[in-house]
Amino acid sequence: MGNSKQIPDIVIGRLPQYLRSLQRMALEGRTVTSSQELGERLGISAAQIRKDLSQFGEFGKQGTGYHIPYLIEQLQKILHVDREWEMAVIGAGDIGSAVARYKGFVNRGFKVRLIFDNDPAKIGQRVGEFIVQDAAHMKEMIAQAGIKIAMIATPASAAQEVANQLVEAGIKAILNYAPISLTVPPGVQVQYIDPAIHLQRMTYYLE
Amino acid sequence: MGNSKQIPDIVIGRLPQYLRSLQRMALEGRTVTSSQELGERLGISAAQIRKDLSQFGEFGKQGTGYHIPYLIEQLQKILHVDREWEMAVIGAGDIGSAVARYKGFVNRGFKVRLIFDNDPAKIGQRVGEFIVQDAAHMKEMIAQAGIKIAMIATPASAAQEVANQLVEAGIKAILNYAPISLTVPPGVQVQYIDPAIHLQRMTYYLE
Repeated sequence: MGNSKQIPDIVIGRLPQYLRSLQRMALEGRTVTSSQELGERLGISAAQIRKDLSQFGEFGKQGTGYHIPYLIEQLQKILHVDREWEMAVIGAGDIGSAVARYKGFVNRGFKVRLIFDNDPAKIGQRVGEFIVQDAAHMKEMIAQAGIKIAMIATPASAAQEVANQLVEAGIKAILNYAPISLTVPPGVQVQYIDPAIHLQRMTYYLE
Repeated sequence: MGNSKQIPDIVIGRLPQYLRSLQRMALEGRTVTSSQELGERLGISAAQIRKDLSQFGEFGKQGTGYHIPYLIEQLQKILHVDREWEMAVIGAGDIGSAVARYKGFVNRGFKVRLIFDNDPAKIGQRVGEFIVQDAAHMKEMIAQAGIKIAMIATPASAAQEVANQLVEAGIKAILNYAPISLTVPPGVQVQYIDPAIHLQRMTYYLE
């Protein structure tokens, strides 16, 4: 995809935040913004934002700021969300069901396609617009659909075994809601969502 | 609380990960570990872990590693989760309900106490062990209960106004599930959970 320069991962981590704020501004009917305004919304310095964006090209003009629709389009291309990625959700409990029904993926490059569980009481049941599939068929169904992204919402005790199967099915990116660190081979990415981790990071600063 | 040295926030952000892995090891019946093993589980270098922990004291002996129950106890004290923090959840939709029923807060220092919504169809309904309270009474109920931590699971359009009210109610830490950046006064912390942000960070690396 021609990412010739090696951009630090911490910069990549900020781009989705810029994109989200810009999409919000667009929803508010705005067409132009500045690194100052973006920075205030995000609690990031204007200089940092200019420096991050300059790694990818020249997106704004001195004194006139950024054209919002153009910068959105460029960031979507850079992050490869100028397309829609189909995803599989593993686990149809509270969290898996909430994620499968989540409206927040619209316009952000993602769409749930399949949801699995191994509980006979859940298999065949409806979750939003989906029917819960038997996890026994997970590997072949994901491989056949060519899905590359999965979200794990199983109990911690099952998450590593599920991750192993997902990797065999061709999954390249895992968003893990199970409160456990996963081991995956090189070339497979994992990100974590664990509310207790975020909360503990804040209680450190609370008396 | 005697955090006399200024520890970098990025170090603080890793401590909950160490604690979670150690608690997992304890569940597995283990009593001793090493920075090497912790590092392998977390994808963090052993040297980094030793350096992070050394900021807070001397927790392991050269050659014998870390005593897991002792290190858990110390990290719980450092992160102020050697107690249980009560939390309020704002929004009783899919995500708020899943968070209110979430079992993963047990033994991690947190407990949901109240859940609110402004939808008459939801107020008075049961979510797990809770009855959904009227958001009109949010401010006084949170202040009266002395709750300092809240999770926002409202639509993006409502989140800032909810955050303003939470701050007035005495909330000092907000975990925001709404896909929007919040503005809060100094002394109030915000952390974000937005699956699309994590996913976009991974798709950058996908072809």
